[in-house]
Amino acid sequence: MQQTKCDLIIKGSYILTQNDERELIEDGAIAVSGTTISAVGKSADIEAAWVADETVDCGKSVILPGLINSHTHVPMTLMRGVADDLPLLEWLHNYMFPIESGLTKDLVELGARLGCAEMIASGTTAIFDGYMYEDVVGKAVDETGIKAVLGEGFFKLPSPFFKTAQDAWGVIEALHNQFASHERIKTAITPHAVFTTDPDQLAESMELAERLDLLWQIHAAESVPETKLTLDTFGKRPIEILKEYGLLRERTRLHHCVDVTDEEISWIREAKAMIAHNPQSNLKLGSGICPLTKFIEAGVTTGLGTDGAASNNNLDMFDEMRTAAMLQKGFLQDPEAMPAQAVLDMATVSGADFLGFGDNGAIKAGMKADIIAINMDKMHLKPVYNPLSHVIYSAGGQDISLTVCDGQALYREGKFLTVDVETISREAEKAVEWALKRIENR
Amino acid sequence: MQQTKCDLIIKGSYILTQNDERELIEDGAIAVSGTTISAVGKSADIEAAWVADETVDCGKSVILPGLINSHTHVPMTLMRGVADDLPLLEWLHNYMFPIESGLTKDLVELGARLGCAEMIASGTTAIFDGYMYEDVVGKAVDETGIKAVLGEGFFKLPSPFFKTAQDAWGVIEALHNQFASHERIKTAITPHAVFTTDPDQLAESMELAERLDLLWQIHAAESVPETKLTLDTFGKRPIEILKEYGLLRERTRLHHCVDVTDEEISWIREAKAMIAHNPQSNLKLGSGICPLTKFIEAGVTTGLGTDGAASNNNLDMFDEMRTAAMLQKGFLQDPEAMPAQAVLDMATVSGADFLGFGDNGAIKAGMKADIIAINMDKMHLKPVYNPLSHVIYSAGGQDISLTVCDGQALYREGKFLTVDVETISREAEKAVEWALKRIENR
Repeated sequence: MQQTKCDLIIKGSYILTQNDERELIEDGAIAVSGTTISAVGKSADIEAAWVADETVDCGKSVILPGLINSHTHVPMTLMRGVADDLPLLEWLHNYMFPIESGLTKDLVELGARLGCAEMIASGTTAIFDGYMYEDVVGKAVDETGIKAVLGEGFFKLPSPFFKTAQDAWGVIEALHNQFASHERIKTAITPHAVFTTDPDQLAESMELAERLDLLWQIHAAESVPETKLTLDTFGKRPIEILKEYGLLRERTRLHHCVDVTDEEISWIREAKAMIAHNPQSNLKLGSGICPLTKFIEAGVTTGLGTDGAASNNNLDMFDEMRTAAMLQKGFLQDPEAMPAQAVLDMATVSGADFLGFGDNGAIKAGMKADIIAINMDKMHLKPVYNPLSHVIYSAGGQDISLTVCDGQALYREGKFLTVDVETISREAEKAVEWALKRIENR
Repeated sequence: MQQTKCDLIIKGSYILTQNDERELIEDGAIAVSGTTISAVGKSADIEAAWVADETVDCGKSVILPGLINSHTHVPMTLMRGVADDLPLLEWLHNYMFPIESGLTKDLVELGARLGCAEMIASGTTAIFDGYMYEDVVGKAVDETGIKAVLGEGFFKLPSPFFKTAQDAWGVIEALHNQFASHERIKTAITPHAVFTTDPDQLAESMELAERLDLLWQIHAAESVPETKLTLDTFGKRPIEILKEYGLLRERTRLHHCVDVTDEEISWIREAKAMIAHNPQSNLKLGSGICPLTKFIEAGVTTGLGTDGAASNNNLDMFDEMRTAAMLQKGFLQDPEAMPAQAVLDMATVSGADFLGFGDNGAIKAGMKADIIAINMDKMHLKPVYNPLSHVIYSAGGQDISLTVCDGQALYREGKFLTVDVETISREAEKAVEWALKRIENR
């Protein structure tokens, strides 16, 4: 048989393809050419048909699509653990704001690099980010090799970052232009929330999203206090305001959606907007428990996100998947709620839709080669009845032995291939002293 | 200065002592003599005063007391992931019972060894166990080097395991005698639950507990369906039955306590009984959310447990701590609920009380040398503002670099020092085939 050349073959005990049939392949292999998957199948068949420059045998492993983090603020990794167990306003005013108001581009880039390194090591290959100075976040994403949708956040104007709407729209459009031809980076319009902006500004930003054909993301209905604030200011609930101003659209991406009514869920569904679920952040900040199963049953495409490491406090999507699977069961007292497959879908195929990366999220020919492997030769992953169960209920980010994004290996057997972890680590510890001084002098 | 000889010095960047002042020592060290801690302090002071046969420098690390798992069924590790996302009765009747009714002593011992290995690698040094054939569980505990309270479980008689009460009491007393002089193993009287036993049998078993001076543990008020079953059978709720039959005592240990009233909490407090909280199992089985903060506020000593790996699906106490800390915050919409320190207390000092191991759970002179170290040189643990925050909110079992129990190193830098993991792994995979056949032929 004539063999076809490819760049890379990855093989292992199990492949959770996440293809349309959610096929599990035992003793499987993947042929990769450039940035793309050429073929997937039984190892014997793939190795008979393809010849590769390099073959990575992951051994006792589960191979699956790179995980997609639908909501994070990656530079905030620099603030991991600076303050916990506090009321939201105290956390914001006494810790986050004093630090954030002094952040430089260098510090934002450092935090982004740290977060990207953490995510690469724990099997995440794509993120939907929102923060300030997203141009340097893009630099970190570009150089570390993952994928991102980047959103330069804005608040009610004038803000510490933008004096006028023109300033904001200018920076956002420049960011868009900067990455317009980048293969792994897109941008999104990113108002912070209904209660921290004003509706006219939101409507204007949606016009920009339409003109540039970008996704439009916003924190929405994160908690009961947010609803109260929005009611006090505008006389309506957050999702009502979005509906009234025509901001629920196909390009709309809503983060959190904890305090929502059934009617609001139906509006979101009708608009074909999508939501990101952030169970650990919602718990840790005391925001509450999202009615996730209602969204899923309604057919709303739902991604999964860690939120920032300052409110999580890690960027491990395996932790997030396990929490998403378990929390609804306990909350609804229904052990059948959010089964393992539904949760893996959130972190892969639905995440790809959420980010607008249609050629991501599954291992099949023609899709981008975003591939991770879990080393199953660990005591907490033995024995194996069902690899999918282990991925959701037993594994953690530290079980990752291989992370490949767009065909490029970023991490392998504990080694970072695109990140200078020593320098990042040293600089991050230095930043602690700076941050503590900002808090002290607030 | 005259130096005193000791066997082992352990040093690292931070020691979370869990002593009465909850002192954090930076650049700390611990001197260990035999099974006991001789001194704790700054590295410079300890190394000036003590000379050791061996010094383990854990480098960038957080050193803390070995974690205490207050509720598990360690042989069930063999059933990890065999079935998930199912209603309780289907899970029990179609999966657990067909397997358990065929279990041999060899398989129970194998499951126990696998579970002990997993716990050693993730920083757990003591467990409160309940299952069948606890004599061989004791063999696994003895040889792997951890500590345990072992309970031979019993159900309404006649059961598959005991035909008469005399059979049961005989086996339980023999188990007690077998380990009566063991330094690391105690036994406990272990009726399964109110709805699976009968009150007279419970009362008789408590007499045995009094006579042998043992702890008396029971699953209690785990879920609303359990309450309904108990009401249907006895006309009273589980905790009411326990109170009525005089079974709430200082030696009583209650597992789960999800569906409890405020009055029942006050009865438990008045009796000085203790509870174990199992948040992940309660979520995954759809049992609900325990009113943990009410127990803590009432002053009920509360341990933390993973439950068995068939309903968790790992034995990682770090996962369990993070869930315990986060879940109450979200459930109560209060970010101040269950702060990090309160949760670490559950897994250390309170766990020691729960197990009746009074000389465990803190790093101070005179206590048993149960010591673990977290390797902080990982991207998901950087930077460090507050080591306690990282232990609860960012770390996982896989960050453990050292596990010492009673002064003996059990695990170091990925190497198991008391467990033959290759043999266990091979045998556990073989058991999968056996278990699947039992399920198929049920």
